[in-house]
Amino acid sequence: MTAIHCVHVHYTQRTGSDALRMELLNFGSVQYSPPLKQRVLRLINEKVTTSEQVAQINYQLGEQFAQAIYKFCDEYEIDISSEVDLISSHGQMIWHHALPHLSGNGNGMRTHLDMAEMAIIAARTGKTTVGHFRVGDQAYGRQGGPLMAFLDSLVLVHPTLTRACQGIGDIASVCFIPAGDMEGCYEFDIGPGTILIDAAVRYFTDGEKERDDNGVMGGEGTVHQSIVDEVLANPYFAHNIPKTCGRETFSDSMAYDLCERMADGGISTEDCIATITRVTAQSIAQHYRTYGPAHGVHEIFMYGEGSLNPNIVNYLRQEMPNVRFRTLEEIGIPGEAKEALAFAQLGVECLLGRPAIVPQKVETRAPAVIGQIQPGRNWRKLVRHASRFWDDEALDSTADCVTEMFIVRDSV
Amino acid sequence: MTAIHCVHVHYTQRTGSDALRMELLNFGSVQYSPPLKQRVLRLINEKVTTSEQVAQINYQLGEQFAQAIYKFCDEYEIDISSEVDLISSHGQMIWHHALPHLSGNGNGMRTHLDMAEMAIIAARTGKTTVGHFRVGDQAYGRQGGPLMAFLDSLVLVHPTLTRACQGIGDIASVCFIPAGDMEGCYEFDIGPGTILIDAAVRYFTDGEKERDDNGVMGGEGTVHQSIVDEVLANPYFAHNIPKTCGRETFSDSMAYDLCERMADGGISTEDCIATITRVTAQSIAQHYRTYGPAHGVHEIFMYGEGSLNPNIVNYLRQEMPNVRFRTLEEIGIPGEAKEALAFAQLGVECLLGRPAIVPQKVETRAPAVIGQIQPGRNWRKLVRHASRFWDDEALDSTADCVTEMFIVRDSV
Repeated sequence: MTAIHCVHVHYTQRTGSDALRMELLNFGSVQYSPPLKQRVLRLINEKVTTSEQVAQINYQLGEQFAQAIYKFCDEYEIDISSEVDLISSHGQMIWHHALPHLSGNGNGMRTHLDMAEMAIIAARTGKTTVGHFRVGDQAYGRQGGPLMAFLDSLVLVHPTLTRACQGIGDIASVCFIPAGDMEGCYEFDIGPGTILIDAAVRYFTDGEKERDDNGVMGGEGTVHQSIVDEVLANPYFAHNIPKTCGRETFSDSMAYDLCERMADGGISTEDCIATITRVTAQSIAQHYRTYGPAHGVHEIFMYGEGSLNPNIVNYLRQEMPNVRFRTLEEIGIPGEAKEALAFAQLGVECLLGRPAIVPQKVETRAPAVIGQIQPGRNWRKLVRHASRFWDDEALDSTADCVTEMFIVRDSV
Repeated sequence: MTAIHCVHVHYTQRTGSDALRMELLNFGSVQYSPPLKQRVLRLINEKVTTSEQVAQINYQLGEQFAQAIYKFCDEYEIDISSEVDLISSHGQMIWHHALPHLSGNGNGMRTHLDMAEMAIIAARTGKTTVGHFRVGDQAYGRQGGPLMAFLDSLVLVHPTLTRACQGIGDIASVCFIPAGDMEGCYEFDIGPGTILIDAAVRYFTDGEKERDDNGVMGGEGTVHQSIVDEVLANPYFAHNIPKTCGRETFSDSMAYDLCERMADGGISTEDCIATITRVTAQSIAQHYRTYGPAHGVHEIFMYGEGSLNPNIVNYLRQEMPNVRFRTLEEIGIPGEAKEALAFAQLGVECLLGRPAIVPQKVETRAPAVIGQIQPGRNWRKLVRHASRFWDDEALDSTADCVTEMFIVRDSV
């Protein structure tokens, strides 16, 4: 819900056994219209809705995403009709429940719901649109997330260094890539990234500020360790991997309750922010110890809003003194563009009918094509293109995953 | 919600300019599991739900539809792995709002929501699945229904006879096909089919009976015309075409209220059923007069539960004495299979990237490919098949609609 992140990316690959060449042409963000953002946040945060509202928000998000595509393309002078073949859309996550046994309401269904009607995106742009990747992953028995490992391992695998890709967005998620073992990668959501911090900042500034820029507020406070420990007693943190979470587990209202209690107890605003920030930092460090590769990691590549917060990063540096901290940007993937790039690639793979690498430590490792396709006016051309890519190959078995990728640098 | 109607159908067409050959191999129905049916009906009838419930019901319906496919295939000894290439799934309609200005709640959005997660259907069957046709039709500016005209006109167009295809399912809908003018067809929903009658039967039998079989209950009653006229004052009936409606306009609770009022007024159960049945019959006759072709129709082809109710059919015969009443079955399309056949064909058209005939008297006649595709394990083969169908044609323009179709008879 921070913004609609867009990338314009060009993939080339001669045959299925060649390396995939990825050229990031442009990236940027488009803000949600404030009334729609409020409406969607209400749907996410409140328990109650109607079928009518669900149907409306799906359509409104579809229009919003289509407008975002036009706005992004205008800004970067991209001609949609000639320079866009396929739109891959994650949609807005409305509900994600991967570990229902943790919720304690006795309802054992793993489910996911994301919205932004693809039929509207395709109708407004004329372009074939792909989306709904997470429901596909769940349908095949996995958790529907984080869905980043296939890309992290393609771009970060190293012959002698074990690496981690650490995202700190709303949620903090990590992918570990053992040295020289791309398909040995595994990933999970650690817990809250900036979601509780952002909510706390909104709470204490009456919504005037949306986040703790540069960690200024938290940096002036003192961590109340007993409260950090109390939050870290949430059963999600002790849950074994694989695990994924979202706003159903770590919600704004959880942060508001915490802030209210701390403020009622006479704890200063700065201390509250420092304490809530430590929840994120400490949970990350703990998860590296508990679930990271046995011999540790050599390098951590960070991205996401929280990776710019020194109160998080300095704590991690202190807890992991032998690790080299880097940014994803250093290898040619701007942090802001990273998740959009992952879903762009999944869109291409869906069209081609090729699964992405399934990481280790998941419920079932059967590779599967995920995503749904809304044909646009260019559908028959794309079908021809996809068909010719496979040429005269026998198509009885599942296509081999891409295991080599080149990033074309310096084009952005 | 009566059942999940299934068809197994084989389409062949050599090139886009040949006639489409349609062979109905098998058809049947599978009942919903009663607890899921109750849960879905509550979602449709009650105003309030949660994101979690919406996500769950979507997945549960997906599992239910996948099971229905297996049950249907078991029953007719269809080997899914070798005898099914593509699954086309309408899904369960949850919300359909085509004329929001009629609802009077000041909310001007045309929306549609249907569910039965395609990712689950494709994962369980291994087969590529197509669905979500109505949202596509709405995205292109139309009402998302009835979506029957393209098929009605293909199978019923006659050089000298003007014909109507009259469906009386939950909702009564009609398509008029002028003599010798297939693309002159137009369609709309008339109003309630059996939806109010079925609800009234449930009301008076405490849910023991689901419908008025052979019109026995209604046939023993007397119509209270003033009440019929009162129901027909609903603004939907006076609304100009195009128009479509669903359970958001004619609901079970509307029928229950009506029954309660009539019963409280001392009107007998039989009279109530007769009166409510007349609403359907009289609205159909009125709509033929108001919106039918200027010179009337020669033949009406009927299908659907309500077409078996003599209290409806005899009234129509009396009101339209010069019309020949026939059944769709006579031309090789069993009534029970008809709507499933329409969506089967739309699924094939979606894969091929070819629009179906857009009827007259709609908001915008631009042809468009509707439907969304969930690739299954056979996706790459289907892509090759679709690509080869178009061979070396230039694909810059929209594909021409099918305008000729043969029904292969006697295979069922």
